[in-house]
Amino acid sequence: MLLDRRAAMAASAAATGASLITKAQAQTPPTPDVTRLLARYVTSARFEDLPEHVRREGRRTLLNYVGVAVGGSRHETVDRALKAISPFSGKPEANVLGRRERLDILNAALVNGISSHIFDYDDTHLKTIIHPAGPVVSAILALAQHRQVSGTDFLHAMILGIETECRIGNAVYPSHYDMGWHITGSCGMFGSAVACGRLLGLTEQRMVWALGVAASQPVGLKVQFGSMTKSMHPGRAAQNGLTAALLAQQDFTADAKALEGKDGWAQAVSRQVRWEEVTQGLGSRYEAALNTYKPFACGIVTHPAIDAAIQLRDQLRTDQIQAIELHANPLVLSLTGKTDPQSGLEGKFSIYHCIAVGLVFGAAGEKQFQDAVVRDPRIVSLRKLVTVKTDPAVSAAQCDLVIRLKDGRVLSRHIETAIGSTQKPMSDAALEAKFLDLSDGVLPRPQADKLMQLCWQIERQADAGGLARAAAV
Amino acid sequence: MLLDRRAAMAASAAATGASLITKAQAQTPPTPDVTRLLARYVTSARFEDLPEHVRREGRRTLLNYVGVAVGGSRHETVDRALKAISPFSGKPEANVLGRRERLDILNAALVNGISSHIFDYDDTHLKTIIHPAGPVVSAILALAQHRQVSGTDFLHAMILGIETECRIGNAVYPSHYDMGWHITGSCGMFGSAVACGRLLGLTEQRMVWALGVAASQPVGLKVQFGSMTKSMHPGRAAQNGLTAALLAQQDFTADAKALEGKDGWAQAVSRQVRWEEVTQGLGSRYEAALNTYKPFACGIVTHPAIDAAIQLRDQLRTDQIQAIELHANPLVLSLTGKTDPQSGLEGKFSIYHCIAVGLVFGAAGEKQFQDAVVRDPRIVSLRKLVTVKTDPAVSAAQCDLVIRLKDGRVLSRHIETAIGSTQKPMSDAALEAKFLDLSDGVLPRPQADKLMQLCWQIERQADAGGLARAAAV
Repeated sequence: MLLDRRAAMAASAAATGASLITKAQAQTPPTPDVTRLLARYVTSARFEDLPEHVRREGRRTLLNYVGVAVGGSRHETVDRALKAISPFSGKPEANVLGRRERLDILNAALVNGISSHIFDYDDTHLKTIIHPAGPVVSAILALAQHRQVSGTDFLHAMILGIETECRIGNAVYPSHYDMGWHITGSCGMFGSAVACGRLLGLTEQRMVWALGVAASQPVGLKVQFGSMTKSMHPGRAAQNGLTAALLAQQDFTADAKALEGKDGWAQAVSRQVRWEEVTQGLGSRYEAALNTYKPFACGIVTHPAIDAAIQLRDQLRTDQIQAIELHANPLVLSLTGKTDPQSGLEGKFSIYHCIAVGLVFGAAGEKQFQDAVVRDPRIVSLRKLVTVKTDPAVSAAQCDLVIRLKDGRVLSRHIETAIGSTQKPMSDAALEAKFLDLSDGVLPRPQADKLMQLCWQIERQADAGGLARAAAV
Repeated sequence: MLLDRRAAMAASAAATGASLITKAQAQTPPTPDVTRLLARYVTSARFEDLPEHVRREGRRTLLNYVGVAVGGSRHETVDRALKAISPFSGKPEANVLGRRERLDILNAALVNGISSHIFDYDDTHLKTIIHPAGPVVSAILALAQHRQVSGTDFLHAMILGIETECRIGNAVYPSHYDMGWHITGSCGMFGSAVACGRLLGLTEQRMVWALGVAASQPVGLKVQFGSMTKSMHPGRAAQNGLTAALLAQQDFTADAKALEGKDGWAQAVSRQVRWEEVTQGLGSRYEAALNTYKPFACGIVTHPAIDAAIQLRDQLRTDQIQAIELHANPLVLSLTGKTDPQSGLEGKFSIYHCIAVGLVFGAAGEKQFQDAVVRDPRIVSLRKLVTVKTDPAVSAAQCDLVIRLKDGRVLSRHIETAIGSTQKPMSDAALEAKFLDLSDGVLPRPQADKLMQLCWQIERQADAGGLARAAAV
């Protein structure tokens, strides 16, 4: 459904004539002072006014972020970044989550942002495909180790940062994304700047400058998908936003219309813009409440089938299976049609493997995509039993999984919307299970449990930076 | 995530005509492997093969860079950047030119890049309006304080970096510039990455990655003109390129077609691209040899008139002047038509002030745009005598200046091409005078003299980093 919607949006943009910003402006009312309106909102918003469901989603976002950053922290991408950067790091004030290294806060924001994106298992704002937490939380968690901030201020800054980057993303999606930008990094620096600026107590004018300095530093191209630089995008966006806020705090000026002005950010990075996505309903409608979390460590197109496999698992033993048939959208095969994967990474692109691990393990986390699992004879033989029938009439959000057992029984499961979508969000318990799965082997279980409690109870903390210390080894 | 990318490809295929680059590619030969071809060239080029006129222009570029960076170093823009960044700086290995602060090399690259652009008095590659030295020299000068490099290696790296950013700029100009990008920062990170990568001795593959990591981090929007963030652009580009080279050195991977590939840099930042500007004549035709230097600390459109005024100065005393008439292109008035400037900055946008200081001082350096000079009664009364007649038939490079004296004499001067252009470059002596004017009040004269000698004799230095130490106080 997500994919269909995106295709429809892109197609409709083309049908109505992908107009230049200048053209669009000629047909619409004068451009609002977006930069200033945003700055005014994020500097004046009050935590008391945040609805509880928004705070709750914030806590879930935080928990998911810490889990994926800890989980990714031992990857060679992080090792290499640390090797390159550490010799130039300043005062070791801030922790690298899941590790023992400490860095200055700017470099810590970079490295934690990298860790958070390694497995592509982070949170997703489905309307824009922005991964909101990486740029924002990586920055404020580091900043909170330099300057004590309360848990409520921290949570509020995080929500305002996420709100900012997602609303700006909404304004330029899909044109911005289609141009080649990896939207998490190329909108994320706004979220980071706002969240850090809020924790620094910037005035409205300085917040205008923070947004302006950030506007000059978008990060990330989709061409990098498949390379380490992809994970650098949210990290560098975190660092750029933090830098922007620190500069603005010292009255380092930027243009007051850096987002919307002539020769500004939107003109440079998008062919279309809908500023009302940024300016309307500020403080009443929350994009931050629409954040979602992946239950499975692979592409979203495989999720309905995995969901179905896990649901059928209790009704069978895998040695009883004679044949498995999946009815799904053609995208499933075109994106994940690898029949005989040889590595963990290839396993993520094999719907056959995804269904097999769902049936065997009742899970498709990072562990189910390790090389050894992909080569496990039990999994190999099981995925050979899978056939996929595609039908464009089946939406990408749906599927039917049919399992024929040797005794003649036929089990089947229809998925209308997979787990992890906004319609069927992961439960808190499922988020905890994901967290524990990711932190296993990185942090001792008691530490992981304590860390989860700190996330759930962030509002009770006097010193939010304690979270970063508690996530280090 | 790969799945996201393919989905976006599918969506964008549905929206036909969304990408001009795709269309253009259909009509032209296959895109060359630009990233790899560049990496191959810059890693294999030999200093011995550089023609002397290219080396000479390199020395002049270096001298001009050091002069403008020293001259700008005491500006409040630099003060504020240092105040924001210094608390997080690492090992103080690298000097801030013109000052006593020392920073880690990444932050030094940022701050020196800012200083170099403060007065908008830096070098200019006229085809693209790139200011080539800021991103490149700011980075390698800092790097040369971390890792000893010879003067010839330094000069060679600088020339290769400038060659890279200017050729890439040629490939996307003017579309890239018209979209809103401040091209010095949005192409400059390639120059910095290549120059730093060369000094780090990167292999071809690692240089591909350095270019790739840099591609994800373009900096700068034209909307920032008039704010401090404008000067941040070359500094951040320097820092991003240096970061990219350091990451690549540790095998931090990026896409091998980061510049030219689908969803790569060129697609995201330009509507047109001519890759032959990058790939043709590498090693035989040098953009780095086309660098120019501003003789006057104001917009290029005023330069013909100032040139004429200075040439007429010896033939009159200003108290003899009855009327001054300038015949010029209409751009002169539309860009610099301020009749009654009140500050130094406003003086830069007043052709009247520019002519007056040319006649009184025989110069239009940074000193002639100080507030006190703009308010000097002698200058105020002189600029009131100036009238400007515009004519579209007069090119922006030309002008006629006619001065009527009280005794009835009429002096006039036609300028076909102003001093500072490629056709009429500043002499070495004029570059030295500019350097001394900029460093006056920052460095003692003997130190300035010694520093100029180090620039002219860079090829004889065993330790190029000594230049940065010699430019500090």
